This record gives sequence, structure tokens and C-alpha cells, in this order.
Amino acid sequence: MTRNNRRTWSVGWIVTLVFMFSTMLNLRSSTSERWVTQAEEHLDLLLIDHAHCEKKAAGTAMNLLVAYVENAPLCRAMTEIVNEELEHFHLVCDLLVGRGVRFRRIPPSSYGRRLHELTRKLEPGRAIDRLLVAGLIEARSCERFGLLRDHLQDRELADFYGSLFESEARHHSTYVQLAKMYGDDDEVKERLEELAAAEAEILATSTDPPRMHS
Amino acid sequence: MTRNNRRTWSVGWIVTLVFMFSTMLNLRSSTSERWVTQAEEHLDLLLIDHAHCEKKAAGTAMNLLVAYVENAPLCRAMTEIVNEELEHFHLVCDLLVGRGVRFRRIPPSSYGRRLHELTRKLEPGRAIDRLLVAGLIEARSCERFGLLRDHLQDRELADFYGSLFESEARHHSTYVQLAKMYGDDDEVKERLEELAAAEAEILATSTDPPRMHS
Repeated sequence: MTRNNRRTWSVGWIVTLVFMFSTMLNLRSSTSERWVTQAEEHLDLLLIDHAHCEKKAAGTAMNLLVAYVENAPLCRAMTEIVNEELEHFHLVCDLLVGRGVRFRRIPPSSYGRRLHELTRKLEPGRAIDRLLVAGLIEARSCERFGLLRDHLQDRELADFYGSLFESEARHHSTYVQLAKMYGDDDEVKERLEELAAAEAEILATSTDPPRMHS
Repeated sequence: MTRNNRRTWSVGWIVTLVFMFSTMLNLRSSTSERWVTQAEEHLDLLLIDHAHCEKKAAGTAMNLLVAYVENAPLCRAMTEIVNEELEHFHLVCDLLVGRGVRFRRIPPSSYGRRLHELTRKLEPGRAIDRLLVAGLIEARSCERFGLLRDHLQDRELADFYGSLFESEARHHSTYVQLAKMYGDDDEVKERLEELAAAEAEILATSTDPPRMHS
């Protein structure tokens, strides 16, 4: 195999991996380099927003447990997610303390609110949508943690985001699987595609300041 | 020491211990034997309600974390309580499964709602009240778990309640200590006495069906 052949093969392999990964995450857009540059320029804000995101992710899982408390597998899964998200919340808080950054309230991006507005009001559609929206947020976090891991000059933060990457992917998968308890596979797949398209559109039209989901 | 002397001494000692314990829990009334008898006659309902109570306790701690997220010690404490309450929730669910009792929604007692109605609307009074109300609910659970441990004929359940007793007492103490971050000791002590009196009154006038807090 010549060097050029090897390079072609490697590029092809990377493109395949990226495709497999984005398919696995069910996202309909890839985050631009502009977001990574912006994130790197506002690392303190990114970390503060990230801490709030972990807290909100824990709250979302808790709300789902409360709403569907009679569903034992869902309750088990939500308990795991609550525990993990709270652990991540404290890890980010520790990073903030280590960097002398005061954790404070900052206006969130409109991403979460706009996504949650898409959830249907009537069950079982509501359960499907709440789980899929939670899953898409995890997927986008996962994609962005991967970008931060690969591109941040700050190696402590790059390693930190690398360490969180796997759990976000797993949470995404958990939410999608749970949604299938409330609708058949085709219905959930179709709704996931609709919501993923909306999620991509929300990010594409965002005018928010630098945030984890701006 | 004669036998009568020993008996007098023992009774005195028990009275002292009960007094110390109720003082530690800051409760203003003791649960009647009638409640224990009623609980024993409706063990399935008690367990189902207990599972819901653990879920609500986890939700309360999560809400407090979200509301006071800039308070790092509070967030640490709430995280521990969320984790423990969810663990207890699953332990009760496992007991239900083991007993072939279907976990389901049942109308809650009015206790929690009536207590939460007493919280003031303005900060920092609101923080104090939310923490003290949560603390009083833990105290009452602790007192009743102790009664169930000591009086239930069903030894599996008696041991189970014995195993939960300590954590409820600890949660009570945590909530009272945290309230002191939002007001001086005298103010918190006075408000705790007011709320404890209201809590006793709510239970004394309860017309609810058999529940953990009826």
C-alpha cells in the first residue's frame, strides 16, 4: 500500500467514523469551528454555563422520574442519570474553584426552552417527546465535549471534556431506548428525526451569547 | 438498689431519652399508638406511600439545590440527600416487588401541601422556611420509622425501618444547620418552633387515610 493509498484509506476511515458517530447521536447538524473558537475565548463563561447545564440535566432526570414513577426501568435509569449529572456538576464547580472563577447565575441560552416548547401536551406523545428532547440535549453535549476534547489548547479542560464524553453518549442512548416504551420503534424514529431537525434549526438561528448550547 | 428502685430508674431513663430524642428532632408532638395500629393494618398502603415520600424528598432536595445553586455547601448536602433518598425509594420499590404489591399512584396526605403553604414568599425567610419544613418532614419520618422499628410484628419491615432511622435524623440536622446560613441562630430557632407547632397541629387535625404522614 503506498503512502497516498494509506492516507486516502485513513481519511475515508475517519469520515466513516464521524458519520457513524453523528448517526449514533441522531444529530442533524455538526457544530461549526466558530463555536469552538468562541468557546475557547470565553472559557470561564463556558464553564459556568456548563455547571448550570449539569444541574439542569439532573433536574430533568428527576422530573422524568417523578412524572413516570410507576415505570420501574425508567426510574432506575433516571436515578443513575441524576447521580451522574450531580457528580459532573460538582466536578465543574471544583474546576471553577481551582481557577478562581466565581460560580454565579448567568442568562441561559434559549436552546433548552425552545426545545422543551416542542414537546406535545398529551400522553403518550408527551413522554416520548420529553425523553427524546432530553436525549438530543445529551447528544449535542456529547458532540461538543468531543470537540472541546480535541481542540482546546487548555489540556486540563480538554482532558476533562474527554472524561465526560462517554457518559453523555450513554445518556443519549438511554433516553432514546426509554422513549420506545411509549411508542413503537417507527414512531419514535420519525419523531426523533423531526426533533433533531428542529434542534439543528434552533442552533443555526441562535443569537445567544457564548454558551454550551449557543 | 431494690427492684422497684431499678424500675423507677429505668422508667426515668427512658423518659429522659425520649425527651432528648424529641428535642433533638424539634418535634412538638409524639405520634399516637393509634397511628402505629392503623399503619400495621394497612402495610401495603404505608409502603406505597413511603415510596412516594422518598421520591418527594429527593425532589425537594433537588429543588433546593436548583434554587440556591450558588451556595456550595448547600449543593453538596443536597446532592447527598438526593442520592440517599433515591436509594431509599428503590429499596422500598424492591420491598413492594418482593411482596407482590403493585406500586401505583395513591392520593397523598395533605401534610406536605399544608406544611409547604407555610413558607414565606420573600428571601431570606423563604430559604429558612423551605429548609426547616424539609427538616421537620425528615424529623417526623424519623420519629415514625423508630415507632415502626419498635412495634411492627413484621420483622422484615421493622428491621427495614430501623435501617433508615439514622439517615432521617441526619437529614433533619443538616436542614436545620443549613437554615442557619440564611438567618441568625435565634431567628432560626424561633421560626423552627413556630413551624414545629404548626406541624403538630396539621397532624392533630388530619382526616387523611392511612399514610406515612397522616
